[in-house]
Amino acid sequence: MGRPDRSAGRRRARPTGRRPGNPDTRESVLAAARAAFGERGFDGATIRGIATAAGVDPALVHHYFGSKDKLFLAAVEAPVDPDELLPTVLAGGRDNLGANAVRMLLTVWDGPARPAGLALIRSAVGNEWTAKLLREFLVARVVRRVVGSLGYPDEERDARGSLVASQMIGLVMGRYVLRVEPLASASHESLVAAIGPTVQRYLTGEVELPRR
Amino acid sequence: MGRPDRSAGRRRARPTGRRPGNPDTRESVLAAARAAFGERGFDGATIRGIATAAGVDPALVHHYFGSKDKLFLAAVEAPVDPDELLPTVLAGGRDNLGANAVRMLLTVWDGPARPAGLALIRSAVGNEWTAKLLREFLVARVVRRVVGSLGYPDEERDARGSLVASQMIGLVMGRYVLRVEPLASASHESLVAAIGPTVQRYLTGEVELPRR
Repeated sequence: MGRPDRSAGRRRARPTGRRPGNPDTRESVLAAARAAFGERGFDGATIRGIATAAGVDPALVHHYFGSKDKLFLAAVEAPVDPDELLPTVLAGGRDNLGANAVRMLLTVWDGPARPAGLALIRSAVGNEWTAKLLREFLVARVVRRVVGSLGYPDEERDARGSLVASQMIGLVMGRYVLRVEPLASASHESLVAAIGPTVQRYLTGEVELPRR
Repeated sequence: MGRPDRSAGRRRARPTGRRPGNPDTRESVLAAARAAFGERGFDGATIRGIATAAGVDPALVHHYFGSKDKLFLAAVEAPVDPDELLPTVLAGGRDNLGANAVRMLLTVWDGPARPAGLALIRSAVGNEWTAKLLREFLVARVVRRVVGSLGYPDEERDARGSLVASQMIGLVMGRYVLRVEPLASASHESLVAAIGPTVQRYLTGEVELPRR
């Protein structure tokens, strides 16, 4: 084993599935991406702008990360890709969306992603910038896609989504961070039965929408 | 203005309303209290045990802090005393408990206590020990007293209480920490109307109880 070699030649020797690209360039792009997503949000940030800020060609960003979605997941160090999980949540149809969303949340958090999820929450609570990124992740990548499947106008979609977020974040905080009993050691199915109806009401039920 | 004087004689000169007692002794008692409440919980910790651990007389702890309740509030640096707020929450009767609990939460968090509340959450998320103390505060000092007014057996009281906690913590996280819109800038009354029914269902409605 020699000294670490950051030259481009090293990249070729990497097995498939490893993080691609020159580590320094990759980190520059990720730093620029965090700044852009935090400042302008997921929708407002562009690959082109991030590439310019990092001093690289946009094609290289595409080559390294594949898409703005994947770049965002890498930037927030998301432990899971919501796009891979959402089809399962949506598959049960409109009337099961609340229960299936709670079940998926519990499955992810009681799986190998938990340490990374806790690290993300710790960072977000202590740091305004990470809080913005986590909010973007929740809103643009998770909640908006679930609620977006229901065909509401944007304003109602976001209002219902923010209510859903409040219950889901509280479930994570109560069960995994503060460990309030019996929430912390309850079975998935008992929590789906208790909290699923709340999320379902926020998604499709009669509910006063949060407004100024 | 002379140099600081920590002798016992200085205490007498302090105006009413200042923190009482020798600062070193006070800190020793608070450190012992944090350890005891974190380790044994609010119910398990005793003034006598805390006094012994701090090397002082139990009468002195009573003299400094008044009661185990007040000592606990000082130990967790609670920005408000729930006992002063709960009568207002309970005054509207059983059927308004959910709405009144949400309204009180918003009143406290949109008031001068917010910075201290945020500091407590930050500390709890990053630190196992503070998480235990915050859980004790929420469970023993807030939730248990609200739900305890409804006459359920202990197990059901704690199960319903942990559901209430999940929604209330999530409201705080979503509105004040992550600032998800429109939750973050919504009026109190629109949030009471949206989230009050959830808390009411957890308190008095038909709900599957979280269990192993």
